[in-house]
Amino acid sequence: LGAGRPGFEGPQGNLRQMTTHDVLYRLSETLASRRNADPKTSYTAKLFAGGPDSILKKIGEESAELIMAAKDAKPQNIVCESADVVYHVLALLAFYGLSIEDVAQELQRREGVSGIDEKNSRTAK
Amino acid sequence: LGAGRPGFEGPQGNLRQMTTHDVLYRLSETLASRRNADPKTSYTAKLFAGGPDSILKKIGEESAELIMAAKDAKPQNIVCESADVVYHVLALLAFYGLSIEDVAQELQRREGVSGIDEKNSRTAK
Amino acid sequence: LGAGRPGFEGPQGNLRQMTTHDVLYRLSETLASRRNADPKTSYTAKLFAGGPDSILKKIGEESAELIMAAKDAKPQNIVCESADVVYHVLALLAFYGLSIEDVAQELQRREGVSGIDEKNSRTAK
Amino acid sequence: LGAGRPGFEGPQGNLRQMTTHDVLYRLSETLASRRNADPKTSYTAKLFAGGPDSILKKIGEESAELIMAAKDAKPQNIVCESADVVYHVLALLAFYGLSIEDVAQELQRREGVSGIDEKNSRTAK
Repeated sequence: LGAGRPGFEGPQGNLRQMTTHDVLYRLSETLASRRNADPKTSYTAKLFAGGPDSILKKIGEESAELIMAAKDAKPQNIVCESADVVYHVLALLAFYGLSIEDVAQELQRREGVSGIDEKNSRTAK
Repeated sequence: LGAGRPGFEGPQGNLRQMTTHDVLYRLSETLASRRNADPKTSYTAKLFAGGPDSILKKIGEESAELIMAAKDAKPQNIVCESADVVYHVLALLAFYGLSIEDVAQELQRREGVSGIDEKNSRTAK
Repeated sequence: LGAGRPGFEGPQGNLRQMTTHDVLYRLSETLASRRNADPKTSYTAKLFAGGPDSILKKIGEESAELIMAAKDAKPQNIVCESADVVYHVLALLAFYGLSIEDVAQELQRREGVSGIDEKNSRTAK
Repeated sequence: LGAGRPGFEGPQGNLRQMTTHDVLYRLSETLASRRNADPKTSYTAKLFAGGPDSILKKIGEESAELIMAAKDAKPQNIVCESADVVYHVLALLAFYGLSIEDVAQELQRREGVSGIDEKNSRTAK
């Protein structure tokens, strides 16, 4: 856990990047495919069956839990709660026919703007 | 915006996957590199200088804004607010020496467990 | 529902003020008395048995639901979700040996400061 | 700060109840009166001028800060952040022509239902 652990550099670094990419992309695909699945078949299908409000309620709850985990400063909990937040954000995107790709493109767009300037333009909106 | 838009299939599909991966990985690296930067140089450096509480406050605020954007059902806003949430989660991870890779590994671990079972094990914790 | 409804003025206005006061004060007392009660006896006792984290998780969840209710602009839901937020804030205060009285005193203290000035002093902290 | 501090019993107990009631009621009235005030005149007027979204954003932010204060277990901060949450919930209610009285009535209605039963009926909705 953590970018600084031993044995992290070298070929593993590259494999690890593939893992991240594969996991988030595959998860987005899986979420999209479960939008109309029988609610009894999985947690995700049940979540979608509850409509956007059930996903949004989870986003509120998991954000609160991430804040709590961070205040406890327990790395394992921070990772788990971050995964919960990311999972439910991906689910929300899938619900609206969007995906992590759209979010990545938005983040990339902002890279072209300096951080402070981007923040100012957001504050001004 | 959205996986179903025209001209999205074909070679672009593959390019797009690279983009997502590159963006999130590069953003994680950038965030990690700014942990000790002069607060005046960027929004990120200023955020880190405020300590974990300033990042957590933003996570609470951006989650609320994502919920509001979803209730308005405006895709562009949902993508922007999701990007804000993801950005600040990545910043929080960077603050604790963690990264999106750790979150991806946790999400991958859960793939081996059926959704309902995973949820039950979480509920039981 | 709402301060402007018919039949609201006159003696009823005064009765209604008593009701608010009685309800919030009585609820604070009830919450304090249930801090060490058997978790099986009530929702509140079960909440306290879960420790502060279970109350905080509910505050995150209920705040999200209040935001959702407000976006739906349904007065009855706004009142219900506001009641949920207030209830769990009172529970949190009771957990720490505090009460709505302490919050009222803090709000009163701020009345002596103009709104904008108070905000500025908060921003500056 | 806290119900158990010295010199709290006796006549003061009664005075203190009046204070709570007066403060919350007066604050509700003040908030209602500022709905259409010039945004430059007070924090509240500025908040209302931003529409419901500006109030909701603050509810998300202040809830996160209350969670953080509780994790720090600092009573003074818990009281201040609770006051921030209550203040913005009252502002939201005022925005929709509602008041703390409506919330008190809802909480009173629930007193007639046992806690566990009330929770069950809410879960079922």
